[in-house]
Amino acid sequence: MQTVVQYLQAHQSDALETLKALLRIPSVSAITVHKPDVRRAAEFVRDQLASANLTTELVETAGHPIVYAEWLKAEKPNAPTVLIYGHYDVQPPDPLDKWVTPAFEPDVRDGCIWARGATDDKGQMLTHVLSVAAWLKATGKLPINVKFVIEGEEEVGSNNLDVFLAANREKLRSDIAVISDTSQYAPNIPAITYGLRGILACEVRLIGPKQDLHSGIFGGAITNPATALARLIASLHDANGRVEIPGFYDDVKPLTDTERSGFAALPFNERDFLASVGVESSWGETGFTSTERRWARPTCEINGLTSGYQGEGPKTIIPSWASAKITCRLVPNQDPHKLTKSLGQFLQKQLLPGCRLEFVESHGCPGFIADANSPFMDAARSAIQEAFGTKPVMIREGGSIPVVGTLKELLGVDTLLLGWGQNTDNLHSPNEHFAVADFHRGTLASAMLWQRIADRCA
Amino acid sequence: MQTVVQYLQAHQSDALETLKALLRIPSVSAITVHKPDVRRAAEFVRDQLASANLTTELVETAGHPIVYAEWLKAEKPNAPTVLIYGHYDVQPPDPLDKWVTPAFEPDVRDGCIWARGATDDKGQMLTHVLSVAAWLKATGKLPINVKFVIEGEEEVGSNNLDVFLAANREKLRSDIAVISDTSQYAPNIPAITYGLRGILACEVRLIGPKQDLHSGIFGGAITNPATALARLIASLHDANGRVEIPGFYDDVKPLTDTERSGFAALPFNERDFLASVGVESSWGETGFTSTERRWARPTCEINGLTSGYQGEGPKTIIPSWASAKITCRLVPNQDPHKLTKSLGQFLQKQLLPGCRLEFVESHGCPGFIADANSPFMDAARSAIQEAFGTKPVMIREGGSIPVVGTLKELLGVDTLLLGWGQNTDNLHSPNEHFAVADFHRGTLASAMLWQRIADRCA
Repeated sequence: MQTVVQYLQAHQSDALETLKALLRIPSVSAITVHKPDVRRAAEFVRDQLASANLTTELVETAGHPIVYAEWLKAEKPNAPTVLIYGHYDVQPPDPLDKWVTPAFEPDVRDGCIWARGATDDKGQMLTHVLSVAAWLKATGKLPINVKFVIEGEEEVGSNNLDVFLAANREKLRSDIAVISDTSQYAPNIPAITYGLRGILACEVRLIGPKQDLHSGIFGGAITNPATALARLIASLHDANGRVEIPGFYDDVKPLTDTERSGFAALPFNERDFLASVGVESSWGETGFTSTERRWARPTCEINGLTSGYQGEGPKTIIPSWASAKITCRLVPNQDPHKLTKSLGQFLQKQLLPGCRLEFVESHGCPGFIADANSPFMDAARSAIQEAFGTKPVMIREGGSIPVVGTLKELLGVDTLLLGWGQNTDNLHSPNEHFAVADFHRGTLASAMLWQRIADRCA
Repeated sequence: MQTVVQYLQAHQSDALETLKALLRIPSVSAITVHKPDVRRAAEFVRDQLASANLTTELVETAGHPIVYAEWLKAEKPNAPTVLIYGHYDVQPPDPLDKWVTPAFEPDVRDGCIWARGATDDKGQMLTHVLSVAAWLKATGKLPINVKFVIEGEEEVGSNNLDVFLAANREKLRSDIAVISDTSQYAPNIPAITYGLRGILACEVRLIGPKQDLHSGIFGGAITNPATALARLIASLHDANGRVEIPGFYDDVKPLTDTERSGFAALPFNERDFLASVGVESSWGETGFTSTERRWARPTCEINGLTSGYQGEGPKTIIPSWASAKITCRLVPNQDPHKLTKSLGQFLQKQLLPGCRLEFVESHGCPGFIADANSPFMDAARSAIQEAFGTKPVMIREGGSIPVVGTLKELLGVDTLLLGWGQNTDNLHSPNEHFAVADFHRGTLASAMLWQRIADRCA
């Protein structure tokens, strides 16, 4: 172990350069024109793993490729096998004009590295690639067996990952999965996430007149799709912030008293929280705290609106169509497919005459909750405590990592969610960043975790 | 008169070439980058009038220039003076990809000329320039005095026109104004418009978090500006399509029974009307026909919506802002300034906590209604009947021509609204066009109108 730690310390600047090189590749999985860039990122990750002496494979899918790599030569016959999941694709970078330095030209300043994907998930995923490489390069071996599955479609629903996992259950058999795609609770308060929200995503498009119409000549007699869309969106919440989709709360697993008091005990200042995002007050489901609303209550959010004229000055038209991108965050027990169907029907039922509704389902995954007291959790707590110098807190998170549910369902394996980033890292926003110190501490904690798992979970 | 008619017939192809040359100039007044093009269009119109031997002037304003021209040498001492108003600016051409041929490359096909501004208002305005030029070139004189005011800010609120009119009341003194910026009732049913709707225009922008936020990490606890905006828009109409802005209907001048029966007698087929714009049913204020809703009832329309992610695929964010462009069409007696204020207060009052409302007022003008039985109306009916071969119908229109109210208010002059276009000419939409035959018949009717006014209104 000491050799590995020394190796990591000696190669910190190499590690940072490797991250920069990966961040320079604009692997935006949602945008077709970036398809070759997405492949380049996959090849880059594969090459890193191959150069660390893992057996690697670029797995073709119907979409972007999956990087698979393994090292299965642990000496002890009962050594656990760890499946490491991560993703090399990133969110679109726009609005581009809000970035201080360009999204795909990584810049190190103020102790952080700034670029799209810095924290989500290139930087965090790379900590495990680098820790495994450090073990193998410094000692020629690992105390456990490892299997890497690094995909390129996390930001667009991981549809082809599921096909790969289902087709390779034997090959992927493992004792535990490890994912770093979450956050610490706060700076210097590392955390293990034992619960996640699920998601459903769709796009609603209302089609009205065959083209934009003069609002003077036609206004009053022709349904305005933007108005019709607004009425549908307004129907999604009641005055208390509760979601009105029929059956939405039917299967929600309620928060336990233990959880509510645990959340309440965490350091949290509502005013600071609001100030951190630049708003003066909040609005949400009545009867729950901000933490509960974010971690353990379902939501329905509008992610984008498009209709009619968006340029400078007025334009007196009735738009020919209007669209909204909608995502719901779900909590454990809610069924994304059932609720997507319910949402579509709910919108269709309330549609004004004179427009047609197109409803496109994008992707969905259920929420997740894990046993906070397993030996693997103990191993992770110990590794993080040593690398970060402080004991991690046990939290839930509001984001969705669909693969966690899939790994449980298809491979029967639980997941350790070990976040090295911060909530304030601007993931999915302009000026995404990742603290360089957390990048290195995360790599160290990862290296230590392999030893702890070998010691405690065999 | 016969000489003028022969001149017009002999020069039809020259007239069409002149229109094409004007249409090639992308004089989009709303978009700053087109400022030099707007000026070029003004210079083009001025040069046309100067070459016809009018005294011309390019009047600088705080915005785009006004073309002024006059010919005041009518032989009879009591010859009426006609003020001809038009505009050389055009609406933005987008969405560009919907045009069959480019917006600023005029194309003649299927009996029409296709380009932005073909009918609104370059083509129609030019009929008067050409008819006056024909009189002067063919006979060296006109039976009346004429004053042209051709502006470049009609599509953005005509703010600087008002300054010009107010400062030049004496110079602009006239007996009647003539404007061709409306439509025939239908093909081969020419019309005189005796009523117009007014307008108020604004943009509402809701500012939420300081940047787009991850909808998983923050969703549920932070107000979503797109949701908040949709709730405001949905509040603008009740279930019966009535506008809910406080006081909106207080000053509305109701339709008379004569008008309602007159409108009902016009050829109109609801199914054909809806089919012409590609929708299957309509939605609007309960208790009124489509014609009444369009011509004589006020509206509140959303002209554009912008928020968050608009690209391909999903993006799981809470948008940092959301905006809507709103226009209300007003009927005679409604006060645009009072109602704009009421709208702003109504929206502010219902705003969800956690966002800030920015309300930008663009422009406004009241509705208009004229005496359908004046001698000028008789002169126009006679000229149109001779040029088109059929008697025009008396109609109202749903669009707004702010200058009509201003001419009445500042110069005390009534307006003849003589439309040569069709409602189906796609004004303000892609593939705007104007029938070449109507362009020539409109020019002929205009030439005849000057004689009729001299005969009947001296």
